[in-house]
Amino acid sequence: MAHVFKRIDGSVTAPRGFRAAGVFCDIKRLGTGKGSNKGRKRDLALIVSDVPAVAAGMFTTNQVCAAPVKLCAGRMKRGTSRAIVVNSGNANACTGRQGRHDAESMARLTASALGIDSLDVLVASTGRIGVALPMANVGQGIQSAGAFIEPGRVAAAHVAEAIMTSDTRAKEVAVEFDLGGRTVRIGGVCKGAGMIQPGMSATGARPAAAPLHATMLCFITTDASIGKRALQTALRHSVAQSFNRITVDGDMSTNDTVLVLANGLSGGARLATRSTPLPVFQAALDFVTLELAKMIVRDGEGVSRFVTVRVRGARNFADADAAARAVANSALVKTSWHGGDPNWGRIIDALGYSAATVVEDKVDIGYSEPGSRRVIFSLQRGQPTTATFKQLCAAVAPREFDLHIDLHLGHAGAVMYAADLTEDYVDFNKGDVTDPASLGG
Amino acid sequence: MAHVFKRIDGSVTAPRGFRAAGVFCDIKRLGTGKGSNKGRKRDLALIVSDVPAVAAGMFTTNQVCAAPVKLCAGRMKRGTSRAIVVNSGNANACTGRQGRHDAESMARLTASALGIDSLDVLVASTGRIGVALPMANVGQGIQSAGAFIEPGRVAAAHVAEAIMTSDTRAKEVAVEFDLGGRTVRIGGVCKGAGMIQPGMSATGARPAAAPLHATMLCFITTDASIGKRALQTALRHSVAQSFNRITVDGDMSTNDTVLVLANGLSGGARLATRSTPLPVFQAALDFVTLELAKMIVRDGEGVSRFVTVRVRGARNFADADAAARAVANSALVKTSWHGGDPNWGRIIDALGYSAATVVEDKVDIGYSEPGSRRVIFSLQRGQPTTATFKQLCAAVAPREFDLHIDLHLGHAGAVMYAADLTEDYVDFNKGDVTDPASLGG
Repeated sequence: MAHVFKRIDGSVTAPRGFRAAGVFCDIKRLGTGKGSNKGRKRDLALIVSDVPAVAAGMFTTNQVCAAPVKLCAGRMKRGTSRAIVVNSGNANACTGRQGRHDAESMARLTASALGIDSLDVLVASTGRIGVALPMANVGQGIQSAGAFIEPGRVAAAHVAEAIMTSDTRAKEVAVEFDLGGRTVRIGGVCKGAGMIQPGMSATGARPAAAPLHATMLCFITTDASIGKRALQTALRHSVAQSFNRITVDGDMSTNDTVLVLANGLSGGARLATRSTPLPVFQAALDFVTLELAKMIVRDGEGVSRFVTVRVRGARNFADADAAARAVANSALVKTSWHGGDPNWGRIIDALGYSAATVVEDKVDIGYSEPGSRRVIFSLQRGQPTTATFKQLCAAVAPREFDLHIDLHLGHAGAVMYAADLTEDYVDFNKGDVTDPASLGG
Repeated sequence: MAHVFKRIDGSVTAPRGFRAAGVFCDIKRLGTGKGSNKGRKRDLALIVSDVPAVAAGMFTTNQVCAAPVKLCAGRMKRGTSRAIVVNSGNANACTGRQGRHDAESMARLTASALGIDSLDVLVASTGRIGVALPMANVGQGIQSAGAFIEPGRVAAAHVAEAIMTSDTRAKEVAVEFDLGGRTVRIGGVCKGAGMIQPGMSATGARPAAAPLHATMLCFITTDASIGKRALQTALRHSVAQSFNRITVDGDMSTNDTVLVLANGLSGGARLATRSTPLPVFQAALDFVTLELAKMIVRDGEGVSRFVTVRVRGARNFADADAAARAVANSALVKTSWHGGDPNWGRIIDALGYSAATVVEDKVDIGYSEPGSRRVIFSLQRGQPTTATFKQLCAAVAPREFDLHIDLHLGHAGAVMYAADLTEDYVDFNKGDVTDPASLGG
């Protein structure tokens, strides 16, 4: 069954019945002592459904999680929502009781500005850790955004700008497809560039095993008509193959959040967990989340190369995942990617110390163009191939390539979307201690 | 009981009855196309006991381990040895059957040059991964080293130079102490600067739990009279509190090796597992291994800061260890150290995603001078303290400082000796693809 959807312009306001706004309230400029309007950035956004929407979410499994994450995780039981309020410049993380109070105030102020129930508002924040939210700015921003919410392309672009921190580019995707004769749309926006290796679950509780490791925020809207359980299940599947498969620096954030609002305004029968058209919706949601997740890696702090690490032949998924993450997070592998160095020694070293079972003389390592099956191998069954150093250098020279690893021990596989490690990453993150405002989470 | 030992000059030739040599055989220059003698480095060393010595060793737990590691681990059952042969410039790792044959040839050539049994020779290698050893050079080096072995300071210094790869400084320590009226000496030499987060065991087999993650090589000699089991037990304890507690880049090497030869020439009663004077020997060996381990971190690739991460108040050792390693290996924490940025948000973020149980509002984070108990806290019980940003910047400005973390959940603690992450590290490790010889393991 081919899942046919087409990419369309826009993001969160592409589906019917969604309005949005992104405004300036100077949270990002606080402490910078910069008085001019030059470089002023939007830093507060609202996404609003005209009618009550089914809501689903996935949240960081970091034990130290931000106040807005706790608020949203708690409201997921409710299952419906009307609005999302987001600020950048301050993560409202490690802010204790005051932080929880401020997150609730953000919901209440939004509800009041929109004339809806406070419990129908979800909240997200990103930026500095450990500093109380400047609520005067936030309150003014919410007022102003509430007055400006509108449908259309421009409002969505303002949201994309308002949620950026160290991002250099807006990250938006929207798709359109047919479900039983009705046109359904899904639109999404996200942010994230550093502290990126998300491991999200539906409750924010950590899974029993699997060491998981980004601030990334993602907001998705759809006019599909879908049940709460079906939406949460679909989102869990989509996040598992997208945001939970990316790494920039291996650090999992306190604030990672993905929220979906489905308002049903496309009309038609409600999609339930086992409904026949659900796979079409799932495929479209998978596409939206994966495109957004890859945008985060491509725009990662200091990133010069985007590498898709494809592990196969592992004994089981846990092994495949451990092997892919070890390679994708190895400082030596990542610096060699930056240098355009096809160093298989560092790759097999990382495989060897990973939690995966690896047998040296069974390992294949090779490269291809993104998505291609034409692999040039540097190592086969543990032995260097006849590929020349020049050929291998050419294979890792492009800005994007795939790294293929076959452990030849079983049938399980895993993919990680990874970034190189550059001098620019270090320079950006070492901060500027003469400017405390530059020192973020 | 105070363990009194004094530091003395020298290293592996400080104990009675040990001779050594470090020579040039151009393994490091192969492929560089550099014909002049400028920059020529010693690259093959021998350490020889005049009489059969009790031997003990600890080896990388990387599943992909080098041929000399396999050879040494196999010979540990024998328990005695006469000589160690080491080359730098080539790791003899991922070299298959040829590699195992070459490691054995190194032992045989050494035995022949010294007129001893081949099984009495231990072998170690460090350098590029995946390239066959240049055995003509190695053989010539062994011949020349065998002819030059001598006691004394200069020979030991030649060994220290011959085992260096990206190291910028020689790493040597020796101590002297009294055991039952006899003067006993322990001397050690080591190398290592990148691919450093050792996790060694006595057999090279990985422990059931604990994800472990250097090429580091260390050779220790002593004229103590000690039994095989007592020596192996003492070494295991020493490595657990030294080499297995360091990280430069979080990558565990294929070649990590620590070898000890104890020739008994100090005379006196043989130390057995429960002998009364054993703690004195243990304390001296602990000092030698910890000093050498710290030298590796201080001389780590591109390192500008040396940070001792001290975790306490964990529920158990596994938690303390996981918390300390998460902080010590976080790219964001390490770049903030480089920038002199007292960013506690990144630290608590890393604690939160570690495998350790962490409760946000119980965590203390603070700094002191190395080894001092005068801690300046940035966070206490999850709350920012009144310490000013300027005060905290001053605390993390020195080249060396201690980071104190108290989880306040139990009584277990762990220490990691860690390095910052710098532009120089990235620049060094991205290699130079126009010069294949620069692209090492």
